[in-house]
Amino acid sequence: MKTSDVLVDAINYIRKYSGEIFVIKLGGETLLDTEVVNSIAQDLILLSALNIRCVVVHGGGVEITKAMDAFGKKPTFIKGLRVTDKETVEIVEMVLSGKTNQQLVTSINKNGGQAVGLSGKSGCLFEGAKKGGRIDLGYVGEVKKTNPKVVLTQLDVGYIPVVSPICSTKDGDSLNLNADTAAAKLAASLNATKLIVITNVKGVLDKNKNLIKRLTVPEAKRLIKNKTILGGMIPKVEGCIEALQEGVKRTHIVGATKHAVLEEILTKTGHGTMVTLEKISD
Amino acid sequence: MKTSDVLVDAINYIRKYSGEIFVIKLGGETLLDTEVVNSIAQDLILLSALNIRCVVVHGGGVEITKAMDAFGKKPTFIKGLRVTDKETVEIVEMVLSGKTNQQLVTSINKNGGQAVGLSGKSGCLFEGAKKGGRIDLGYVGEVKKTNPKVVLTQLDVGYIPVVSPICSTKDGDSLNLNADTAAAKLAASLNATKLIVITNVKGVLDKNKNLIKRLTVPEAKRLIKNKTILGGMIPKVEGCIEALQEGVKRTHIVGATKHAVLEEILTKTGHGTMVTLEKISD
Amino acid sequence: MKTSDVLVDAINYIRKYSGEIFVIKLGGETLLDTEVVNSIAQDLILLSALNIRCVVVHGGGVEITKAMDAFGKKPTFIKGLRVTDKETVEIVEMVLSGKTNQQLVTSINKNGGQAVGLSGKSGCLFEGAKKGGRIDLGYVGEVKKTNPKVVLTQLDVGYIPVVSPICSTKDGDSLNLNADTAAAKLAASLNATKLIVITNVKGVLDKNKNLIKRLTVPEAKRLIKNKTILGGMIPKVEGCIEALQEGVKRTHIVGATKHAVLEEILTKTGHGTMVTLEKISD
Amino acid sequence: MKTSDVLVDAINYIRKYSGEIFVIKLGGETLLDTEVVNSIAQDLILLSALNIRCVVVHGGGVEITKAMDAFGKKPTFIKGLRVTDKETVEIVEMVLSGKTNQQLVTSINKNGGQAVGLSGKSGCLFEGAKKGGRIDLGYVGEVKKTNPKVVLTQLDVGYIPVVSPICSTKDGDSLNLNADTAAAKLAASLNATKLIVITNVKGVLDKNKNLIKRLTVPEAKRLIKNKTILGGMIPKVEGCIEALQEGVKRTHIVGATKHAVLEEILTKTGHGTMVTLEKISD
Amino acid sequence: MKTSDVLVDAINYIRKYSGEIFVIKLGGETLLDTEVVNSIAQDLILLSALNIRCVVVHGGGVEITKAMDAFGKKPTFIKGLRVTDKETVEIVEMVLSGKTNQQLVTSINKNGGQAVGLSGKSGCLFEGAKKGGRIDLGYVGEVKKTNPKVVLTQLDVGYIPVVSPICSTKDGDSLNLNADTAAAKLAASLNATKLIVITNVKGVLDKNKNLIKRLTVPEAKRLIKNKTILGGMIPKVEGCIEALQEGVKRTHIVGATKHAVLEEILTKTGHGTMVTLEKISD
Amino acid sequence: MKTSDVLVDAINYIRKYSGEIFVIKLGGETLLDTEVVNSIAQDLILLSALNIRCVVVHGGGVEITKAMDAFGKKPTFIKGLRVTDKETVEIVEMVLSGKTNQQLVTSINKNGGQAVGLSGKSGCLFEGAKKGGRIDLGYVGEVKKTNPKVVLTQLDVGYIPVVSPICSTKDGDSLNLNADTAAAKLAASLNATKLIVITNVKGVLDKNKNLIKRLTVPEAKRLIKNKTILGGMIPKVEGCIEALQEGVKRTHIVGATKHAVLEEILTKTGHGTMVTLEKISD
Repeated sequence: MKTSDVLVDAINYIRKYSGEIFVIKLGGETLLDTEVVNSIAQDLILLSALNIRCVVVHGGGVEITKAMDAFGKKPTFIKGLRVTDKETVEIVEMVLSGKTNQQLVTSINKNGGQAVGLSGKSGCLFEGAKKGGRIDLGYVGEVKKTNPKVVLTQLDVGYIPVVSPICSTKDGDSLNLNADTAAAKLAASLNATKLIVITNVKGVLDKNKNLIKRLTVPEAKRLIKNKTILGGMIPKVEGCIEALQEGVKRTHIVGATKHAVLEEILTKTGHGTMVTLEKISD
Repeated sequence: MKTSDVLVDAINYIRKYSGEIFVIKLGGETLLDTEVVNSIAQDLILLSALNIRCVVVHGGGVEITKAMDAFGKKPTFIKGLRVTDKETVEIVEMVLSGKTNQQLVTSINKNGGQAVGLSGKSGCLFEGAKKGGRIDLGYVGEVKKTNPKVVLTQLDVGYIPVVSPICSTKDGDSLNLNADTAAAKLAASLNATKLIVITNVKGVLDKNKNLIKRLTVPEAKRLIKNKTILGGMIPKVEGCIEALQEGVKRTHIVGATKHAVLEEILTKTGHGTMVTLEKISD
Repeated sequence: MKTSDVLVDAINYIRKYSGEIFVIKLGGETLLDTEVVNSIAQDLILLSALNIRCVVVHGGGVEITKAMDAFGKKPTFIKGLRVTDKETVEIVEMVLSGKTNQQLVTSINKNGGQAVGLSGKSGCLFEGAKKGGRIDLGYVGEVKKTNPKVVLTQLDVGYIPVVSPICSTKDGDSLNLNADTAAAKLAASLNATKLIVITNVKGVLDKNKNLIKRLTVPEAKRLIKNKTILGGMIPKVEGCIEALQEGVKRTHIVGATKHAVLEEILTKTGHGTMVTLEKISD
Repeated sequence: MKTSDVLVDAINYIRKYSGEIFVIKLGGETLLDTEVVNSIAQDLILLSALNIRCVVVHGGGVEITKAMDAFGKKPTFIKGLRVTDKETVEIVEMVLSGKTNQQLVTSINKNGGQAVGLSGKSGCLFEGAKKGGRIDLGYVGEVKKTNPKVVLTQLDVGYIPVVSPICSTKDGDSLNLNADTAAAKLAASLNATKLIVITNVKGVLDKNKNLIKRLTVPEAKRLIKNKTILGGMIPKVEGCIEALQEGVKRTHIVGATKHAVLEEILTKTGHGTMVTLEKISD
Repeated sequence: MKTSDVLVDAINYIRKYSGEIFVIKLGGETLLDTEVVNSIAQDLILLSALNIRCVVVHGGGVEITKAMDAFGKKPTFIKGLRVTDKETVEIVEMVLSGKTNQQLVTSINKNGGQAVGLSGKSGCLFEGAKKGGRIDLGYVGEVKKTNPKVVLTQLDVGYIPVVSPICSTKDGDSLNLNADTAAAKLAASLNATKLIVITNVKGVLDKNKNLIKRLTVPEAKRLIKNKTILGGMIPKVEGCIEALQEGVKRTHIVGATKHAVLEEILTKTGHGTMVTLEKISD
Repeated sequence: MKTSDVLVDAINYIRKYSGEIFVIKLGGETLLDTEVVNSIAQDLILLSALNIRCVVVHGGGVEITKAMDAFGKKPTFIKGLRVTDKETVEIVEMVLSGKTNQQLVTSINKNGGQAVGLSGKSGCLFEGAKKGGRIDLGYVGEVKKTNPKVVLTQLDVGYIPVVSPICSTKDGDSLNLNADTAAAKLAASLNATKLIVITNVKGVLDKNKNLIKRLTVPEAKRLIKNKTILGGMIPKVEGCIEALQEGVKRTHIVGATKHAVLEEILTKTGHGTMVTLEKISD
């Protein structure tokens, strides 16, 4: 592609997104390779330089399992869901807010940005309650209210907020939140223009393992139903659907490779899969 | 004391301190009793209501030792100083930023305030380097530069910042900071009016175990030299001296009992020990 | 009462009243003792330091009678009301705006505050007309419109406005206003939170001469009807009722003793009598 | 003179004086005729409409004498200066702040302006001390410091401040000030562009009783020395000289006739006498 | 007329018009005499000094004809309207924006003001289309939309905008606009208080060639119908009617003589003809 | 070049230049081809979207010669310089301000931007005098003072100012300015970061007609001296040198081809020749 065409397209996207908020969700699986984390940190800093206001929400599943192991806790699962007792949620919180979150903050700062690590408790960002349902999973929460002021405060002075998916009940008990859902809720409450989910595959693939560039919500639901979309990709796509239904304009699922986010956002061809409510023309 | 006299004195202090910044250092030993933490949280919220801008710095020694134990790490000491290897500093960071810090945030929020938990990495609050000296203690740091903007940002919108004494090197390695020193440095960089050290005794005691209400720096140094001040009180007094030498006006050492902070600040008799550079008349 | 409880209560009141406007009405009878005036002045200055915006309205009956005597004017009364001819109103105005008002301004300034004396003519604060009724009382006025901008202007720069109850007709004739009514009208137009009437008894007393701490409007009306409330207390209570009916939240009748105002406002037990529209719980 | 020439000249003066402060000193002798007072009030309102910020300082000698008479006080003079005992200064204050000042406020308001009457005590406008000298004249003061903020506060919201020449000592004793001197001091502290002295003759007259249009300070001093300027005109000219020496640019002495002030300020020919430090060309 | 009466009237008008916008339309015929142009420039500067925000729209017929002649173009007229082909509109634009407009800018600047010359293309001030109708007149336009921001931008920093009646089509073709209509449209879009049309006669004359001081729209229409108003005066009066119907309060037709504009605006008698929607009393 | 590398480089330049002012000088020879003008207009609009504040200065030599021809004026040259009599300068002004300038404004507006055409007279942008020297060239001017406020005013509200190189003497005579010099002076007075000269060759060429990418002032002077730089390129290079010497950081000479400006500014390889005071490393 001609350099000048790349420039013209990029400028048009920059003009369109300047001042807008993007929520970037980083899966725990993408945080294990320092190189990848550094590359994502650099892209966030570059986007911030263009006055695109980036907010990060991260997971941390792999590290949590490692820490539980160290503490001698054995995970129990009921119908595939992790039972989270008091001791477990303490470990989850320590890992998410005290390790994963801090690693991201360190990486952004080391690359020349200015990150502020926040748990979902800070400024009462997320107000939660124990997840209902027939089975008691313990300290697993769902978001009841989002108070995005604490995130906007950091954005307003040029910081990149990095949020761990933890909150507390009214009584002060800690709750573990699903990171995809937390990112979707936060994106909606911030009137974010985009939710970008970064994961370890390059996007949604069809039956033949080819990348699907664009997907509407009805199409996505069909692909889940007919088992084209499988396993860990399901909650990511569902997070996108939730964000779209709460008003986020466009959601993206992108692989954790160098400058993938930049290309996804600033070029016409993009890099991964864009999911939207309906078909769109541009 | 007559009610109206209490009121008149309190109003005069409120008038004097309105808009000023106080740094409150909470020792790890004061955080074990939930009642005490709640009481301190309430005092912080009341002071904030008077437009006194409170910043909390906390320790967490007891919890760190517990967590190391869980991870099967045995502490090594050289001449009374803890050797902190890579694994240890990771645990320290998890506990300070992911547990102790979050407990304080939770307590302030539960009592009606709005706290924001920050590690010393956020917004590059503390820039550090490994502590020099003949013995290599590992990942123990000293503060090289303080960037208090991230703390002021939270104060400006009415949040109570809660800071854990962790920072990173230029290469992104985490460092454990002494909480007393970190609080003193932060107080100085914020032009704080007061540094208030809350601990588990009610202040500095003389030979006869009576409370000393006022102490100058030369007197304090003499009491350390002649071993009237002993053990864990030494770093607390030294933190006060450091803060005073860097420009903080008054420092206080106060016990962790109900409303002790309030009485220390808003009454003439006070509650614990006030340490100042020189003798002062009021 | 424990010092810390006094402090906690006071801080809660301060938080509640910060930025609010209080109108304080000083009866002429309270201005004769310089000590008392100084004490009230000090309380006003302390309240202002807490960002409670105080506005003073004063009477001056005793001084007026003295001045009329000096001018050789003999007061005439019809059914207990003073007939105010042209000469009399000139004397009234001179005394209220040129003597009583100036004494209060002097006392506040001498004690470290900054008062601005205003007659009700300044900035057309009160627009009045001769009082109607079957008997012509001469230059006795009633307030037709209140323009509180001149008072707010002084408050905005930190002055304590002191207002004399004088206004003029459209034709420029001076009118004497009842100070209780003027204070009530001013309080209502300023959306004042409190009207505090300072007088020479410590509040409303019951049949046995015991202080009544709290009174509702219906109760107050009953006490007037059954002659428990008598004489000079009647217009004071009626002024409170008028202010309450025009939207002022709470009104107080307090004795002119040292720091009575401070205790009335900043403690739970209070000092005098609080009159409210209905029973309230806190 | 051609209408368009009047307009062009007037616009040039308006452009020059817009936003500037003029201090207008009204002698007590000019306040006896209601017609004259109304005319001056109208001119002040018109000037204010042109964004010329007018401040009035007034005297009140005639009314004071009348009031003293009513109170049965007989004036005593030592070398032409009135001895002012405690009783006298109370009468002076009542008359100046409670009568003359209020008459001016009433007149400005009645004609459509918005005046605020201020004694020199309000906002500590004038801080004074008893006048020194070999003879003790009692409560006659001289200005030690001027705090013009209270006057600027009124101007900033569009009010016309009207100031009576009264202040107090640090101990709270009232002092009578010379109105010409007070006006000069106030003009200087406000960086006023003009001091305009309105009196009962149309300006400074020469030996042949012809009006002198322009006068420099040296010329004025010579005319006082050679007794061309006599009697009550001397303090007026001396007030002008004092104001000029403290930085006021131009001073004027104008008769109390209809629209004299307007013509003095907005036409080339003027109306009375302009006194300046040196000869000026325009 | 007495000088003070002229002053009082003028101040009242100045007070009324301060901050208001006046649109002044200068006919091409008034721009030939440098003396006249300088005099008008001086009046505009004086009015601006009074915070009356002046906007100039000019014609340029005479100069256009001269330039066409130089270029060897012969004007063609169909039913009295000039046919404007591509070459002609280029000449018209050069003359209006490059000559007449620049002369006015130069004259205002030379006399001490600060003018900014704008074509109707700048900031898309006028968006136009070719004039419809049965006969194709070529590049003669009518205004479809007015974007007055570019004019307000200049006024806000104190410049006098001078506008040439040229705009372009969406395709970028230049169009010649009628200056009277353009001025009326601009006045309406700016919520101007007055439209003042300056021409080479002193106003609208009656059958006996006497000046008509005031005219309502119905009267004006009748005078056109009965041929009292004739020739070049018709489009001027019609421009006034259009402006009045779109919300401009008062319109004036004034001769191009020295200070005529000033007298028209700032005196009761005025100079030319005022046209209003209905009869008005002041 | 890889797309992501183009993006990263471009973002770094955008970050560097955001909020900065660029002066773009368009030679008359580049304005003859509508396609080229549209392409440049689009680049200016794209740069403005990136918050790069673009100011255009244009020439118009070719059009001037055509217009003089139409008016029957024959150009006279003395030692290569055009003699500009009164008639000629009128034609020059008409063409530059009324034709070339308006074409650029039209093109920018048509492509979606908002341009404001300004002659150097508007807001007294350029104050000039006749050029000195032994030979009288008539109405050829040099800039004596630059008042860039009028340009900044347009930039502040988002307009693209387009400036014609015309000014006037104090007496109001129009003067023709050299466009290269005017652009250099304007760039200096605006503290512009870049001066970009767009012409009909792609940059400065060496002896072998290869493009020189970077040139220092000493090198440029040598190339002029040894006649490598010839003809019309000399004033362009000299304009760059003048701008550099008055404080502009970087100057560029770029060909008038599609998106050449964009590539010159936003890529590392650039498009034409960059001229700087000294060698620079990035």
